[in-house]
Amino acid sequence: MGEPDVSFFGCDGEDDKTSADYCFDSYSHFGIHEEMLKDVVRTKTYQNVIYRNKFLFQNKVVLDVGAGTGILSLFCAKAGAAHVYAVECSHMADMAKQIVETNGLPDVVTVLKGKIEEIELPVAKVDIIISEWMGYFLLFENMLNTVLYARDKWLVDDEVVLPDEASLYLTAIEDAEYKDDKIEFWNNVYGFDMSCIKKQAMMEPFVDTVDQKQIVTNCHLLKTMDISKMVPGDASFTASFKLIAERDDYIHAFVAYFDVSFTKCHKLMGFSTGPRSRATHWKQTVLYLEDVLTICEGETIIGSMTVAPNKKNPRDVDIMVKYSLSGRRCVVSRVQFYKMR
Amino acid sequence: MGEPDVSFFGCDGEDDKTSADYCFDSYSHFGIHEEMLKDVVRTKTYQNVIYRNKFLFQNKVVLDVGAGTGILSLFCAKAGAAHVYAVECSHMADMAKQIVETNGLPDVVTVLKGKIEEIELPVAKVDIIISEWMGYFLLFENMLNTVLYARDKWLVDDEVVLPDEASLYLTAIEDAEYKDDKIEFWNNVYGFDMSCIKKQAMMEPFVDTVDQKQIVTNCHLLKTMDISKMVPGDASFTASFKLIAERDDYIHAFVAYFDVSFTKCHKLMGFSTGPRSRATHWKQTVLYLEDVLTICEGETIIGSMTVAPNKKNPRDVDIMVKYSLSGRRCVVSRVQFYKMR
Repeated sequence: MGEPDVSFFGCDGEDDKTSADYCFDSYSHFGIHEEMLKDVVRTKTYQNVIYRNKFLFQNKVVLDVGAGTGILSLFCAKAGAAHVYAVECSHMADMAKQIVETNGLPDVVTVLKGKIEEIELPVAKVDIIISEWMGYFLLFENMLNTVLYARDKWLVDDEVVLPDEASLYLTAIEDAEYKDDKIEFWNNVYGFDMSCIKKQAMMEPFVDTVDQKQIVTNCHLLKTMDISKMVPGDASFTASFKLIAERDDYIHAFVAYFDVSFTKCHKLMGFSTGPRSRATHWKQTVLYLEDVLTICEGETIIGSMTVAPNKKNPRDVDIMVKYSLSGRRCVVSRVQFYKMR
Repeated sequence: MGEPDVSFFGCDGEDDKTSADYCFDSYSHFGIHEEMLKDVVRTKTYQNVIYRNKFLFQNKVVLDVGAGTGILSLFCAKAGAAHVYAVECSHMADMAKQIVETNGLPDVVTVLKGKIEEIELPVAKVDIIISEWMGYFLLFENMLNTVLYARDKWLVDDEVVLPDEASLYLTAIEDAEYKDDKIEFWNNVYGFDMSCIKKQAMMEPFVDTVDQKQIVTNCHLLKTMDISKMVPGDASFTASFKLIAERDDYIHAFVAYFDVSFTKCHKLMGFSTGPRSRATHWKQTVLYLEDVLTICEGETIIGSMTVAPNKKNPRDVDIMVKYSLSGRRCVVSRVQFYKMR
């Protein structure tokens, strides 16, 4: 066959630029943005917050922290913002610039490629900071500190951070089937005992969707963060909890999840990532217990959860849970959210 | 509540060693090993090859290249190997050592932590090299070169590499629905045109399970590799193909997949990762075309596929496909398998 007369994407035969050139970390990869955009609980909530509360945006200067594809900036521009600065440190910033151009908004949205801590804004102050900074378990790999940095540096007093409230909850579930599949599996792998991996598996939280029917106890509010006022240290905390069984059952795991709220809207808006709400890409965070607890309706698990950034890798999160069932023996469980490197 | 009287996994309150200490790359993470072990097509085939062909292993010295959890080494030990050297460079080697101990096989299986190119074996020669080195698209992130290195350094002449044959195939599919979901999605994202990301998305292969009903043409054998004789350069090649439509349909993508064979077994054994076989964790590799081809039964797509390691990152794979439909215009499509960094 002869030489091609049509090439893909304008690449010619000598052009060895590849998609890898756009990719220096996982946020440069479009797959994660596709997942986030297709999470309609997440993206539609932001869209509704912005489109239904245009009074917040009209003629205001907005800073979008961790803009990704620029979707929130585009929403703000459509809602009448005077100007939007979309800051994104991954190579996705180059895509965001193209997207802003393609959609005819280069006069309203300026994409800045770089870290919030390092970039310079052409303005001294902004009126609104908007960000979708939440990670698994709210705090894993999150950009909360980046948002707080931006708030302290550029936000006009008493102006708006969106969202401005995030709450972390804990409940307890029956989960025999999945625990067998994920944890007990290692006891007998094609006839071999690999239970040492089981111990490692239990030291990590699982991110997975929990069926609300698995919930055995109440849901306890562990911590609420006021994003407009908190300091970075507030993301390290110890919170006590009391979980009361709502039926006789077994408990295999604690489950953590979070809500976020936009309290500055005309009407309170927000979403929950809990097992009773529509599933999001954050799913829930499952922390398996070494032992299976046998619990009766009305019995209580009391305990505390300590959450802190890992000392070596501050974007990782260390979680320690202490608990006892109706005064019986007290157990300490340590887990860690860490990034595969 | 008081101090805990029972701690998890023998960790005491002062021990800040965490699971992250076991993790320096994705192969240190147990999740990927869980997926591979639970791929029964993969693991059961290796188990059957070993257990049903004990004559190959009895009193032989075996080298397991990229041993992971050590499962293949354990199989070989059970099949009567005189000794097995299990080489694993990730921290999973520490787990493999524990697993070998737990299963009472430390006299037969020696786990060596390190790269094949750097470790020293206590023996000058081995009788058998066994490895599960295959990656997506056979060659992505694969350890083939490592296997070939080990073969040339340690394998006694005319002895056994398992598996010893790998073949790459190409076919073409109708895939309107999924292409819309993954590619055309970017045309209109909440009202905005993000088609520049679509271009990027098409420059990458998708790893996904194809329904055999989607197959429109024959399956063409692109390349067979003889692992016992090939040289590393043989993994870079250009192969021509001819795909003949078996019905009137549209074609949205090429699909590549591979088979592996163990020809030294008493009876030929192996498995296929093709869309007509039981799904494996390798799934298939889907290469979308920019245009939709309208093809009639009996019409042919002729073309060639060029496969080579990426120059910058040799574990990435560059793929170029040139094709034309029944002599009509010729198109070049470039895709690249790359690791997220």
